[in-house]
Amino acid sequence: MNINGTPTRTIRPLSDHGGVEIIDQTLLPHRLEFRTLRTLEDAAEAISVMRVRGAPLIGAAAAYGVALALAEEASESRLETACARLLATRPTAVNLRWALERMQTHLAPLPAAQRGEAAWNAAAVLCDEDVVLNQSIGRHGMELIKWKHEQSSRTVNVMTHCNAGWLATVDWGTALAPVYTAFDAGIPVHVWVSETRPRNQGAALTAWELAQHGVPHTLVADNAAGHLMLHGQVDLVIVGADRAASNGDVANKIGTYLKALAARDNGVPFYVAVPGPTIDWRLADGSGIPIEERAAHEVTHIQGQAEDGGVTSVRLAPAQSGAANPAFDVTPARLVTGVITERGICPATQEGLAQRYPEAGVCRTA
Amino acid sequence: MNINGTPTRTIRPLSDHGGVEIIDQTLLPHRLEFRTLRTLEDAAEAISVMRVRGAPLIGAAAAYGVALALAEEASESRLETACARLLATRPTAVNLRWALERMQTHLAPLPAAQRGEAAWNAAAVLCDEDVVLNQSIGRHGMELIKWKHEQSSRTVNVMTHCNAGWLATVDWGTALAPVYTAFDAGIPVHVWVSETRPRNQGAALTAWELAQHGVPHTLVADNAAGHLMLHGQVDLVIVGADRAASNGDVANKIGTYLKALAARDNGVPFYVAVPGPTIDWRLADGSGIPIEERAAHEVTHIQGQAEDGGVTSVRLAPAQSGAANPAFDVTPARLVTGVITERGICPATQEGLAQRYPEAGVCRTA
Repeated sequence: MNINGTPTRTIRPLSDHGGVEIIDQTLLPHRLEFRTLRTLEDAAEAISVMRVRGAPLIGAAAAYGVALALAEEASESRLETACARLLATRPTAVNLRWALERMQTHLAPLPAAQRGEAAWNAAAVLCDEDVVLNQSIGRHGMELIKWKHEQSSRTVNVMTHCNAGWLATVDWGTALAPVYTAFDAGIPVHVWVSETRPRNQGAALTAWELAQHGVPHTLVADNAAGHLMLHGQVDLVIVGADRAASNGDVANKIGTYLKALAARDNGVPFYVAVPGPTIDWRLADGSGIPIEERAAHEVTHIQGQAEDGGVTSVRLAPAQSGAANPAFDVTPARLVTGVITERGICPATQEGLAQRYPEAGVCRTA
Repeated sequence: MNINGTPTRTIRPLSDHGGVEIIDQTLLPHRLEFRTLRTLEDAAEAISVMRVRGAPLIGAAAAYGVALALAEEASESRLETACARLLATRPTAVNLRWALERMQTHLAPLPAAQRGEAAWNAAAVLCDEDVVLNQSIGRHGMELIKWKHEQSSRTVNVMTHCNAGWLATVDWGTALAPVYTAFDAGIPVHVWVSETRPRNQGAALTAWELAQHGVPHTLVADNAAGHLMLHGQVDLVIVGADRAASNGDVANKIGTYLKALAARDNGVPFYVAVPGPTIDWRLADGSGIPIEERAAHEVTHIQGQAEDGGVTSVRLAPAQSGAANPAFDVTPARLVTGVITERGICPATQEGLAQRYPEAGVCRTA
């Protein structure tokens, strides 16, 4: 999508394959800085500390991480250790495992001399596919917004959580692809952006990317979701997912489950945008999804822009108080109105998903 | 409760009646500063900008605000304008109206020469009564914690929201009075403190006061409530209220409704601590409770302690993004397991409340 009117992707290889350029998302919304990853460790660090984040973008960054690793040495053992290193960076998003398995399956059989170039190509293909998947999610999801608008002749109020916009993917986003598609088609849409504590991806990333693209939006505290729904100010909730189980349970940023409960209590449709690579067919339900516990520091401190323009971290809590920081929660399928996939919208059930992805077969651990 | 081991109240008159000393709660948890209010305007400002907050403490501060106003001039018209000025400071907490009506009813019939001294006495009585009410809520609510402990022989995990501790009252607190009572009685209790964006009263005030009193606690983002309940880590939710309608609907800090939904979905008991003065008998249900909309600035910016020790405000959101900031939500009575009053625990129903407060009669607007 656009930054200052210029179409931009979140990740792209340098033309000489000497590195991969990313947007350092830890500095947004205060500073737009591009950063070049030149080694496997650069890529692993960028994923760990969330310079790149969002399930699809984590997958794309890991694929390029493999390419960077093989540029140093293209042996099969190097391929294996690189994939293991990248897989360990973050536990919840299944796209990471998906991307690494795909790279490994593609690259392992090749002669070492071909692996390096093949890795760059495979990562580029994966990125291009991500864009196509998201555009397709956008077209399908846009119908929900269009339908709401045709019903009411009013601006459609979409609530989202965290950032499942283009910054979470290579381009377009998952949950926000329908919003961008509707907006570009002239359908009046407004987004309630919940700030998404503790990392504030809503306030820092979703608000920023919507502002850059010119989409009307309003920031609210996560706590405001129920109140807004109770007062008829939300027509539709669309969120992304870090991992969906084969029965339609979805792990997404902590707090998603609360929004789903509020949507159910107020009759607001609650949709999850899930591209195929985010579905974990090995899991019968969401109880098996590993939930990342991140540092207490992310709760007790927060980063922002001081009056002098500098980006700084401030402490919010008393020094004596500890904090817990589960980064995701699992929303049970029963609270999900539907799943927006690149192959259309389906019920959040094993049958619904299996019908869209017949090649996936049944859950392997069921 | 204790500050550094010293029993302290949140508000107290100077012995010469030249002013009222409060803790400036906008500086906590980073700095403990007492501040003297000397005029009606000082009191109104302190309530408006939340140097004092919490429904019972707002009532107490308003009562002393009347005393400060009458110290300047004790006419009946001064009494009326002072009450009107204080009533306009914040709309949601009904204790404000209750305290002012009580002061006015008591003071208006008196000769002007007696009003000044009578106002100081009436405010002191109101404060002493608040302490007694809260101690009583503590004794009744403690039974819930004790019972959970006897059932499980484990530490009882209580979740709360915002600050309904002693900082929200004259002493003891409402929602936290049962926790302090249980803790002082040696019952093992641990509190999940949700930070309570956007004003962070959980992180700033609840964590601080629990730490000062030595009560084990862990800070979490508001978003974590559902996940913790789903994983059996919460035995009991206890929150306060800014106003309860006569049917048991309760307005409390924004986000309370989401916690109530999560509690219901996971079979976790959800209690609201409500002293009598917080019940608005004029309202048939919660739909008539005015919800304060506060400044967008409270969402887009946050205050914290910088590395150099200074307390500073940083911007969290892009400059182009607007924000909405509803400060309270209404939790429907159907989600409330019970109301902890100073007269015992009762169902969140018109009958349940009326039985505890027979003198209140039926709802006047029903």
